[in-house]
Amino acid sequence: MRNEAGGSGLETGGSGLNTGDSNLEAPKTAMVGDRTERELIARIRARLPPAPPWMLVGVGDDAAVIEPARNRAEVLSVDALVEGVHFDRAFTAPEAIGHRALAVNLSDLAAMGAAPRLALLSFALPSSLPLDDFDRIVSGIAAVAAHHDVHVAGGNLTRSPGPLVIDVTVAGSVKPRQALTRGGARANDEIYVSGAIGAAAAGLQMLGGAVSSVSSVVKSDSCINRYLYPQPRVRLGLLLSRNRAASACMDLSDGLADAVRQVAEASDVGAIIDAAALPIDAGARCWFDAHGDDAIDAAIAGGDDYELLFAVRPRLRNRLKAARASGIAMTRIGVFTADRALLVRRPGGDTPLPQGYSHFR
Amino acid sequence: MRNEAGGSGLETGGSGLNTGDSNLEAPKTAMVGDRTERELIARIRARLPPAPPWMLVGVGDDAAVIEPARNRAEVLSVDALVEGVHFDRAFTAPEAIGHRALAVNLSDLAAMGAAPRLALLSFALPSSLPLDDFDRIVSGIAAVAAHHDVHVAGGNLTRSPGPLVIDVTVAGSVKPRQALTRGGARANDEIYVSGAIGAAAAGLQMLGGAVSSVSSVVKSDSCINRYLYPQPRVRLGLLLSRNRAASACMDLSDGLADAVRQVAEASDVGAIIDAAALPIDAGARCWFDAHGDDAIDAAIAGGDDYELLFAVRPRLRNRLKAARASGIAMTRIGVFTADRALLVRRPGGDTPLPQGYSHFR
Repeated sequence: MRNEAGGSGLETGGSGLNTGDSNLEAPKTAMVGDRTERELIARIRARLPPAPPWMLVGVGDDAAVIEPARNRAEVLSVDALVEGVHFDRAFTAPEAIGHRALAVNLSDLAAMGAAPRLALLSFALPSSLPLDDFDRIVSGIAAVAAHHDVHVAGGNLTRSPGPLVIDVTVAGSVKPRQALTRGGARANDEIYVSGAIGAAAAGLQMLGGAVSSVSSVVKSDSCINRYLYPQPRVRLGLLLSRNRAASACMDLSDGLADAVRQVAEASDVGAIIDAAALPIDAGARCWFDAHGDDAIDAAIAGGDDYELLFAVRPRLRNRLKAARASGIAMTRIGVFTADRALLVRRPGGDTPLPQGYSHFR
Repeated sequence: MRNEAGGSGLETGGSGLNTGDSNLEAPKTAMVGDRTERELIARIRARLPPAPPWMLVGVGDDAAVIEPARNRAEVLSVDALVEGVHFDRAFTAPEAIGHRALAVNLSDLAAMGAAPRLALLSFALPSSLPLDDFDRIVSGIAAVAAHHDVHVAGGNLTRSPGPLVIDVTVAGSVKPRQALTRGGARANDEIYVSGAIGAAAAGLQMLGGAVSSVSSVVKSDSCINRYLYPQPRVRLGLLLSRNRAASACMDLSDGLADAVRQVAEASDVGAIIDAAALPIDAGARCWFDAHGDDAIDAAIAGGDDYELLFAVRPRLRNRLKAARASGIAMTRIGVFTADRALLVRRPGGDTPLPQGYSHFR
C-alpha cells in the first residue's frame, strides 16, 4: 500500500522515468484492474517532474520526508472528488477530473494566502476504469501541478468496489502572521470577490441538462470551461496576504452565499451584498435569463466558481493596488455590518441571503 | 466543503465542544444523510481535545496552519480505508474502523522513525450510514489519536453514493538524518521483525470465514483483536531511528514477504529468511495448522500485522538495546545478501519468497 513504487524515494530522476515509460504501451482496452499497484505507480511517476531538493524522500517509501520552508508556517488541506457527487464521467474528460482534484485543493491554499508546495494523491480506483482514463486523470493533475510548481510527494492507490474517489492533500507555506483566515473581518470592512461568478454553475447545467432549442443557442464554451477547469486564485491569494490587504478570505467552492455566511459567522458580523454590483459572468447571465431563472439568485447560490471572497478595511483599500498584479478582477460587492443579518440589497428591497449548497441534507 | 464548521479555526476550546454536545441527542435511527455537513463536523469536534499551541489555525477554516517542529524534517503519508476492500461493516465494529484508519497511517510514520503530530480526516459517507456508527468511527479515531498525541487539524466530509471511504493524511517530524528509509540496507545486514506475525491474517479468517467445528475450537480472541485493532509501532520506530540502530525500515502492512521484497529492491540486495526463526503468533499457528495450511507460508504472505521489518548492521547490533525500552519483541529472522535472490530457508531447502498481497491484479 501507499507510496510503494520500488526503488528509494530519493531516486525519482531519470531512472524512475524510464521505468514508467516501459509500461506505457498498453492495449487500448486495458483497465486498471489489469495492472499491479506498482505498475500504476510507475505510470504516475512517469508523468511527474524530478523531485525538488527540499523533498528529502519522495514517492516510493512508507512516507515522504520534506524540509520545511524557512520561517514559514505550514498550511494543510484535504479535499475529495467522488464520482457521482462531484463529477460525472459521462461528460467530464479524465483530464478535467484530474485538473479539478488538485485545483480545488490549491484554491483552499489560495484562500489562506499560502504558497503551494506539495500534494499527496490518494486514489480509490474501480477495476474497470480504463487505463487510458487513469493516465489522463494523472496528466490533468500533473498539468495543474506544473503550472503552480506543486510537487507530488506521495500517495496511495487502492481498489474501489464503487465510484472513483480521488482524495488530494496539499501542503503550502505562509508567514505565520500573514495567513488569511475567515475570522478576521470587522463591521464596515468592504466585501470583494475576484473574477466573475455564476459561470461554473451555468456550465454544469449546460453539460448535464437535457438539450433544448433554447439551450443550444445560449450555451457558452467559456462557462463549460469554467466548470471543467477551475482556476485556483493562488497568485491573488499570495498578493492579498503579503501586504495584509485582506482582513479575511475564503474561496467560493460552495458558492458566494455560503462564503459570505461562513466569513460573517467566523468574524461575528453580518453582511449586506449589493446585487447590482455582483460580477456575474455574461454567458451565465444569458443562460439563466433564457431559462427563466433569476441570474442573481443563481449566481449567488451556485458553487464551483473557486473565486476568492475577501474583506478589506476601508482605510487599507489602497493596498489592493498590489493585488492587481494578479491580473484578476476584484469587485466590491458589499459590506460587513455590526448587525448580524445577512442580506442581499436589490432594487425592490433587501432579501435574506440564500443558503449555499449543502452536501448532506 | 472541507474544514467548515463555522467559527474561527482558532476557537476549538470549550465553545466548540458545547456546539457539538447539543447535537448528540439524536434518535437511534438517525443517519448521516439526516444531518448537514456542519452538524457532522460539530460531532467530530465534540470528540477531539483542544488544539495544541502549534496549531495556529485548526478545524474550521479553508486549511490548517501549523507551526513546524524546530530543526525537524516533516514526514507525510496518506492511506485510505475502503468499505468492501479493507473492512467489512458486517464484522468490524465502527470503533475498529476508526482505529484502523488512523493506526495504519501512524504505522507508516513509525516505519520512517517519525514522531506523529497531526492528522487530516477525509470521509466519503453513504447517506444511510447510521449516525451512531459515524460517531463511533470518530471515537475510534480519537482514541488512537489521544494515545499517540496526534491532533486532528482538519479534514473533509462528502457524500458517497457507494462504499464508506476514510482517507487519512498524517504528518510527523524527524531529524533529517534520522529518517528510516527502505533503501539503506546492505549485504550482511541482519533482518529483524518486531512483535509476532500471522495473527492479523488468522484473525481476519476467524472473523470472515464460515463457521465449522474446527474453527470454533481454535478461534483466538487475541488474533481477532490483532486484526481489528492494529497497534502501530510508533515508539519502536522512534527508538530505532534516534541512535540509527536500523539501517532500513518498513512496516508490514502488506505482509512480511512484501516488506522483505520492497526493502531488498530499494536497497539493491537479496535476502534469506530463516523460516524456523519467524515469530509466528501461537494462536495463528494453531489456526493455520487446524485448517491444513502451512503456518509459515500463511504468516509470511499474510498482511495487516503492522509490525516493523528493519535491517541492522552486525557491528551496530548493540544499539538495539535502546529499542528494548519499547517493550516490543525484536526477532532476528534472516540476513540481507549481496546475491539478489529472495529466499526462505527451510529444513527441506531454500524456496523462493512468496509474493505479497497485490491490490489490483
